[in-house]
Amino acid sequence: MIDRYQSKSMKEWWSDARKFRTWYQVECAYLKAYLEFYDRYDEKLINDLYGYEDSIDWQEFSIRVKEYDAIVKHDVIAFLHVLEEKIGKQARLIHVGLTSSDIVDTSFALLLNGAAVEIDKKLDQIINSLWQQARNYKGVLMLGRTHGQAAEPTTFGLKLLSHACEMWRGRQRFKQATQEISVGKFSGAVGVYAHTHPHIEDRALQNLGLKAETVATQVVARDRHAAYFGALACLAGSIERLAVEIRLLMHGQVKEAFEPFSLKQKGSSAMPHKKNPVLSENLSGLMRMMRSYALAAFENQALWHERDISHSSVERIIAPDATSLMEFALERLNDIIAHLVVDKEKLSHNLEQAGDKLYSQGLMLALVNKGMMRQQAYELVQKAALGAHGSMKENLRDTGVENFLTKDEFEQIFSPAFTLRHEDSMFERVENLCLRPALNAR
Amino acid sequence: MIDRYQSKSMKEWWSDARKFRTWYQVECAYLKAYLEFYDRYDEKLINDLYGYEDSIDWQEFSIRVKEYDAIVKHDVIAFLHVLEEKIGKQARLIHVGLTSSDIVDTSFALLLNGAAVEIDKKLDQIINSLWQQARNYKGVLMLGRTHGQAAEPTTFGLKLLSHACEMWRGRQRFKQATQEISVGKFSGAVGVYAHTHPHIEDRALQNLGLKAETVATQVVARDRHAAYFGALACLAGSIERLAVEIRLLMHGQVKEAFEPFSLKQKGSSAMPHKKNPVLSENLSGLMRMMRSYALAAFENQALWHERDISHSSVERIIAPDATSLMEFALERLNDIIAHLVVDKEKLSHNLEQAGDKLYSQGLMLALVNKGMMRQQAYELVQKAALGAHGSMKENLRDTGVENFLTKDEFEQIFSPAFTLRHEDSMFERVENLCLRPALNAR
Amino acid sequence: MIDRYQSKSMKEWWSDARKFRTWYQVECAYLKAYLEFYDRYDEKLINDLYGYEDSIDWQEFSIRVKEYDAIVKHDVIAFLHVLEEKIGKQARLIHVGLTSSDIVDTSFALLLNGAAVEIDKKLDQIINSLWQQARNYKGVLMLGRTHGQAAEPTTFGLKLLSHACEMWRGRQRFKQATQEISVGKFSGAVGVYAHTHPHIEDRALQNLGLKAETVATQVVARDRHAAYFGALACLAGSIERLAVEIRLLMHGQVKEAFEPFSLKQKGSSAMPHKKNPVLSENLSGLMRMMRSYALAAFENQALWHERDISHSSVERIIAPDATSLMEFALERLNDIIAHLVVDKEKLSHNLEQAGDKLYSQGLMLALVNKGMMRQQAYELVQKAALGAHGSMKENLRDTGVENFLTKDEFEQIFSPAFTLRHEDSMFERVENLCLRPALNAR
Amino acid sequence: MIDRYQSKSMKEWWSDARKFRTWYQVECAYLKAYLEFYDRYDEKLINDLYGYEDSIDWQEFSIRVKEYDAIVKHDVIAFLHVLEEKIGKQARLIHVGLTSSDIVDTSFALLLNGAAVEIDKKLDQIINSLWQQARNYKGVLMLGRTHGQAAEPTTFGLKLLSHACEMWRGRQRFKQATQEISVGKFSGAVGVYAHTHPHIEDRALQNLGLKAETVATQVVARDRHAAYFGALACLAGSIERLAVEIRLLMHGQVKEAFEPFSLKQKGSSAMPHKKNPVLSENLSGLMRMMRSYALAAFENQALWHERDISHSSVERIIAPDATSLMEFALERLNDIIAHLVVDKEKLSHNLEQAGDKLYSQGLMLALVNKGMMRQQAYELVQKAALGAHGSMKENLRDTGVENFLTKDEFEQIFSPAFTLRHEDSMFERVENLCLRPALNAR
Repeated sequence: MIDRYQSKSMKEWWSDARKFRTWYQVECAYLKAYLEFYDRYDEKLINDLYGYEDSIDWQEFSIRVKEYDAIVKHDVIAFLHVLEEKIGKQARLIHVGLTSSDIVDTSFALLLNGAAVEIDKKLDQIINSLWQQARNYKGVLMLGRTHGQAAEPTTFGLKLLSHACEMWRGRQRFKQATQEISVGKFSGAVGVYAHTHPHIEDRALQNLGLKAETVATQVVARDRHAAYFGALACLAGSIERLAVEIRLLMHGQVKEAFEPFSLKQKGSSAMPHKKNPVLSENLSGLMRMMRSYALAAFENQALWHERDISHSSVERIIAPDATSLMEFALERLNDIIAHLVVDKEKLSHNLEQAGDKLYSQGLMLALVNKGMMRQQAYELVQKAALGAHGSMKENLRDTGVENFLTKDEFEQIFSPAFTLRHEDSMFERVENLCLRPALNAR
Repeated sequence: MIDRYQSKSMKEWWSDARKFRTWYQVECAYLKAYLEFYDRYDEKLINDLYGYEDSIDWQEFSIRVKEYDAIVKHDVIAFLHVLEEKIGKQARLIHVGLTSSDIVDTSFALLLNGAAVEIDKKLDQIINSLWQQARNYKGVLMLGRTHGQAAEPTTFGLKLLSHACEMWRGRQRFKQATQEISVGKFSGAVGVYAHTHPHIEDRALQNLGLKAETVATQVVARDRHAAYFGALACLAGSIERLAVEIRLLMHGQVKEAFEPFSLKQKGSSAMPHKKNPVLSENLSGLMRMMRSYALAAFENQALWHERDISHSSVERIIAPDATSLMEFALERLNDIIAHLVVDKEKLSHNLEQAGDKLYSQGLMLALVNKGMMRQQAYELVQKAALGAHGSMKENLRDTGVENFLTKDEFEQIFSPAFTLRHEDSMFERVENLCLRPALNAR
Repeated sequence: MIDRYQSKSMKEWWSDARKFRTWYQVECAYLKAYLEFYDRYDEKLINDLYGYEDSIDWQEFSIRVKEYDAIVKHDVIAFLHVLEEKIGKQARLIHVGLTSSDIVDTSFALLLNGAAVEIDKKLDQIINSLWQQARNYKGVLMLGRTHGQAAEPTTFGLKLLSHACEMWRGRQRFKQATQEISVGKFSGAVGVYAHTHPHIEDRALQNLGLKAETVATQVVARDRHAAYFGALACLAGSIERLAVEIRLLMHGQVKEAFEPFSLKQKGSSAMPHKKNPVLSENLSGLMRMMRSYALAAFENQALWHERDISHSSVERIIAPDATSLMEFALERLNDIIAHLVVDKEKLSHNLEQAGDKLYSQGLMLALVNKGMMRQQAYELVQKAALGAHGSMKENLRDTGVENFLTKDEFEQIFSPAFTLRHEDSMFERVENLCLRPALNAR
Repeated sequence: MIDRYQSKSMKEWWSDARKFRTWYQVECAYLKAYLEFYDRYDEKLINDLYGYEDSIDWQEFSIRVKEYDAIVKHDVIAFLHVLEEKIGKQARLIHVGLTSSDIVDTSFALLLNGAAVEIDKKLDQIINSLWQQARNYKGVLMLGRTHGQAAEPTTFGLKLLSHACEMWRGRQRFKQATQEISVGKFSGAVGVYAHTHPHIEDRALQNLGLKAETVATQVVARDRHAAYFGALACLAGSIERLAVEIRLLMHGQVKEAFEPFSLKQKGSSAMPHKKNPVLSENLSGLMRMMRSYALAAFENQALWHERDISHSSVERIIAPDATSLMEFALERLNDIIAHLVVDKEKLSHNLEQAGDKLYSQGLMLALVNKGMMRQQAYELVQKAALGAHGSMKENLRDTGVENFLTKDEFEQIFSPAFTLRHEDSMFERVENLCLRPALNAR
């Protein structure tokens, strides 16, 4: 991923240096379990090996592997070769009985898992920001819009609350998917444990915080990874929905909420007057990429026989790219939400401008409640709502509505305090269902 | 979906008649809860309304709705209009306080849920067939292949076992996703319960077997549906992997396993000698469609403000198409697996032809175990494996291998009984982890 | 495709009856060329065969094929069988030397081509409507918006003109792609003309209005079809851009242009006051499907060896679905554009509301032209544009601007007549480049 | 794109240094045309400006822009600022009357175009290699396979010839798409030439080798770019088809053709005997990415109003990634094809093993030609082909075939020299249609 859209920590995480270090950790975890299993445990060897993890310059190591890989065209073999160079005879038992996939797939689980940890932190942050802002704007009336058209009043708090819940669901899904890819394998070539034992695998993976692939071919099955990238794509759609909401609310004719705009920021090289929702537009674009990556992950599933290596090139690209983009996007989204500028006056103004036709449904229902047939009520109210006068109330004069409703009943229909009387309980429900457990979990 | 790829029951399930009938069920469930909540419960009315469900000719009803929809261009309004035609004054309270999405989205949950039940039945069936066949071919030795090349021996049973586990995972994922879309809403326009009460929603949805959307905009959030179609796409990748396996095993040069071929079936209009894996190829193609549908579902998420209706056209197409294709595909896959023709002699033959170089890893490991350095062992064995004689053993003569290994040690390396000694425990593990609970659940 | 989104003519075109009739036409064209080539031309036979095309009830024929296909599981063999039933001994030479793909692929070219003709008619129509409306709204000033924010003035005519050009490009691309799929093959099994002759193929295809696949495997190569569905996906993006434009212009806070709304149409089952851009939203959704279908077509390319049949199931679905949806969408879009309701007063109002800061660039440029450094000018103008007074002019007082510009120079900056002085020549250019040739071609 | 899949030249081409240099070239081209148009041409200024292109250290320049961009959050403004730092007062007229998109989109056309030139070179190379190898293996008989099953004889030359033609088509499509994106714009904000003149645009673009966008909004329309990435996706499908072919031919049971394998290359870290088609598998994976990128490009089309910037993040990623991957893939594919190892003995062996049933169609046709009804002939031949003896000829004894055919007629049926008699003319046709013009064009 280009620097622009990748944090430094993600860049480090997906570096070759980190990859080879992870491979080394995996090799050591296996070797330790292997020696234990065969009662050949050699404390000095294991201690020395764990010591090398800190003493090796993994940056330099990775360059050396690259050079050797250019000759043998097999990265695990190159890695083992360089390792032998570095630590000599103590490398002798490393990789014994294993195949490349044992190391590569197990390490991949650790790397995807670590990336997921970073993403999860940002998810926690954005859910928290959405929840805080939802509470800040609880009771702040605004125009609810369907099809971009005035519908009925809602509050800015409820709008954000729906996004908080959706993001919460996305987080649960991604956690679930992360568990699914948190599996490794040490079952060797074609996955039959020919030169090892399932118990060694169990113990080694346990030490790495992973589970064992139930039945590996030679590799961990790629449906797991497809689900992981699918969960990210799904989350991307939720980010996009929020980004589009901001873009619409900031539209020059709407102007209800605004991205934060730093003091020195410039909107346009040509038009000095511009302030643009460039962060949200950027997120809209980036989320398209997340769908793309998921697609490639879905295509990666159908490997041939006990494995082919077609998935590998895709994963080399999408694993860093998708997780880095997601972390970046969540951070950016959080910047927008945490510092969102809301123009409460404009919210009120736009609500008022929509006029009393907003309450057309309430009126229709009241009439039906008092005995009018639904079709008749609908037509009467539609006529009033779209009538000559701007105000529905005015258009209703002399329509006989007064025969159905008392003045008080009539006025209550037009009261947002009445129509939004359930807002409190909606907040409570969310707190109980989603957010309290999340807050506790921290 | 075209008839060719849609079962009769799925065709009925996704018919307009069924849709309107479901809408009616949803309207009745709401009305019942509504009347109860306001202590206006009217037993006769409710009984009559439930009675209409059976007495209405929903086929004819749906034609009438279509006609009226052509005029008002709004299907729920048309539905309510025809309902009023059919049942007169008793329709008066139907839809009171609700918006179209309350009915449409809640019904959509029921329909997707029902389709999921059919799919789950087929998943149960294919998992069972894979498990049975895996047991049938336990111990049946064959060539394990990576990159399409001879790797090490495996068994036909283990091959199928890995597919059984993958299908099992796909089923869990789809179940989880089905729960996620099993939510409805009765919170009215812009989701604020302006003309209703959350308790009514709770009770009505409970009666329908659904949960309530935590915070609805005006609609149920579409991340849920994206996850549902994403789970189907992921499952599709697993089906494709199995279909490709069959196609490869049936390849004219491999001929280890075959799709069942009915007596009167013809393979080619031009070439009377042909028997082709047309079922598996068909599945390979159909699964591409499943990825496509998921993609459209992902794009459906970012609705504007409290809702727009762009998702609706997509769902009208992909909901029936994706679920029908999946049900069809699972049935077809089960036909293949349950009646798979396996040529055990060819399995043996191909294994033997691969020669003793299959055991090159075992040999290398044995040498390393006896103290040879890894690189040296690798090169010695590679040279022998790719040497002048077809047999690695022969190529090993005069290489000094005898100084490292006893004759017995040497011979054990070449024994599949030895390399596959863990097969039993692998079957047991799967039985414990995946299949036993599934069998119990039935 | 569901009836809702498929015209009657497209439904007929993609029916089984039409497909078998097309197969028959293709068989006859080949047989005629075959007999001619071998000097065995039999006028009576050919006349009789061509006569059968009209006399056969293809609806009934297709039902019979379906029944037989259920037994032999091969549609071409079933077709030939039923043909023999219908026309007896005269069928004897039909399909001689051919393989199924010769008929199926050649017919597929004819069917896709015919669908393309229908789509092209609609493209002609929508381009014409856009062009007419662009001319109608030439000179009608409105707010140009970038990032949804006020940018500089444009005209409604220019807005539509850009869409007319884009649709024109989409049409050229689709024409090109249609030519690419307008190829057939009669080269028999594995495409080597073993039992036929390239000259027969040439002549038969010429009679059908097609060209020959340069080198067929056993099938026409699927890159051609991928390009066809790719061109439709690209066109879909253009339709979506226009649909989104309408949705934004019709937004409750913008209200500059509106979809036509028929007299009896209803906007919401709950809210009688609603008028919603449901047609444009519907198009936004449908166009997602078009991307999906293209994706499946791209995946269809990599057939195995001389062919497998995995592409077939995909094509059975996407060929009718994609072309029908496109025809439907273009017709719907044309309805919107041809009857678009534009509120000229609102256009003016929104333009005025944006204020004189719209001209910030003009001012900055004038200052630079008069010698001010770019950065200095930018900052001066940005300050004025975002200043305390609503009007930039007012904010400019006492900034020393008067030292750089004469009063006339200053006033011209704020004149839309000046900034839009090139509109005429832009229209002329489009007429010359795109539309005139199109108009001539009709 | 990661280093592994990006050539050095592509890495340089898509560097920030190159981007800003291109921006500068575009600014200069515009300024020159601008001064000429207004008769203010200043030779010294222009000469100086063009001189700066060589003297500026663009690497260092790009770092400086990045720093400033972090403050103003607008890359073009940052670029202009740094430019003013570097060249002082002579920068005064740069960007006058333009908006960012004028520079960014025009430069993007140049960059995409330059990348296309590199890709086109590789396309020329691979088409040439395919053509050469097709000629090398002309007449080399092999088994043609449909559905992975023995069909009829073909030649290795014809197989490669079909790929040569497909690649040739992909090249034409990509050339066409490259022309489509080879447009720039200098029409300023909202594309109305408010502060410039169409003639300046024409002249400046002509100097840059580009055409003008017919009607720009504020940006060049993104249908053009969608078509470009769509053409790459289509080409990817063709590469994938060839990669899958190699993988199948190299399958351990097929072994007809092999990727080149360098002397020191190692196939497996576990199994020293392995030689794997890792290059082709790698291409299979990478081509999945190309579909992904196209998808994001399709989603990029529907920008809001006169532009939003959501497309930009996508393009920053996919433009380098898609073009670099394609260049890399074509180079790798060429390595495979140019050094393909073909085992002619295995080709013969597999053909022979398929037996005489390969000629079942020829036999059936001969019988039909001699007057047998098609169905009867089909059944007789199918029975013989699938009969008890391995040889169809033997199975045909005592079936009465001898009453229909003379011995010579009978024997000719089984002669590949006869069935492949049109190979020469197929090669000639390709040479005339596709390759000769391409060769001439070089």
